Amino acid sequence: MSRLTELDESECVRLLRSRVVGRLGFVTTAPAPVIVPVNYAVVGRAIHLLTTGHGLLSRWATTSDVAFEVDDIDPSRWSGWSVLAQGPCEVVPDSEASQLRRQLPRPRPWADGDRHTLLRLRWTQITGRRLGGGA
Amino acid sequence: MSRLTELDESECVRLLRSRVVGRLGFVTTAPAPVIVPVNYAVVGRAIHLLTTGHGLLSRWATTSDVAFEVDDIDPSRWSGWSVLAQGPCEVVPDSEASQLRRQLPRPRPWADGDRHTLLRLRWTQITGRRLGGGA
Repeated sequence: MSRLTELDESECVRLLRSRVVGRLGFVTTAPAPVIVPVNYAVVGRAIHLLTTGHGLLSRWATTSDVAFEVDDIDPSRWSGWSVLAQGPCEVVPDSEASQLRRQLPRPRPWADGDRHTLLRLRWTQITGRRLGGGA
Repeated sequence: MSRLTELDESECVRLLRSRVVGRLGFVTTAPAPVIVPVNYAVVGRAIHLLTTGHGLLSRWATTSDVAFEVDDIDPSRWSGWSVLAQGPCEVVPDSEASQLRRQLPRPRPWADGDRHTLLRLRWTQITGRRLGGGA
C-alpha cells in the first residue's frame, strides 16, 4: 500500500521540469528549518525561482545548502511521486537575470518585469520516489 | 499579483486540519535539510504522521525541531494559501499509539493495523499566508 520505488536521475529531472510550484526548505538560526512554496522553472541543470516577498527566504536561502521538493500525490490512494533536489542557492547577477527572465516560459508572474530577486539552485543531489503500486 | 496576507493562528489551524498530505522538513548532518511528503492528521494541537519507509525521517525527525508545511496553490493564478508549523517531533509511545490510530479518521492507510512508527509534532509556532488578491 505504501510501496516505494526509487526513481533514477533522468526521471527525477523530467518530473521536476513538469511542475511549476515546489517547496523550498532552508535553515536559519532557529532550530527548525523553514519551508515555503515557490513557483519555479528549470533552465539547464538549475532551478530558478523568485523571492516573492518572504524576507526569511532572501535572507537565509543563500547561506547554506537548501532543499527543493516537488510532488504530485493522490491522497485518497497515497499514490504519486516526489522529487527532492538539494544543493547551494545563489542570487543570479542582474546581468544574467534579465535575459533569463525572458527565457523562462513560466510561471506567468515572471513574465512581468518585476524587481524581485532571482535565485538559482544548482542541485548537487537529486532523488525521487514513486509511491504506491499502480501509479 | 503576488500579494501576501498573513493568516491568524485559528485560520492556520483550520487550514491545517483541512488537508491530508503535507511536507515534513528536518535537518540531518548534511548541509541541506530534507523534505518528504507525508500523510497526516491533526488531533488536538498536534500533527500525527507515520514514517512510511523513509529511513532518514525516522532517524532524524526527532533529533531537532522540524517544519511541516501544507498548501493549496493554483499555479496559473499564483493564488491560494500555505501554512507552516514548527516544533519538536516525538515518537508516540505504543501505549498511546494504538488508541490514537483508531481515533484518526484519515488518511486511509492509517486504518490498517500496520507497524509503522507514529510520530507527533506539537507545534510551538504556526504561521500562514494567503497569496493573491482574489482567493
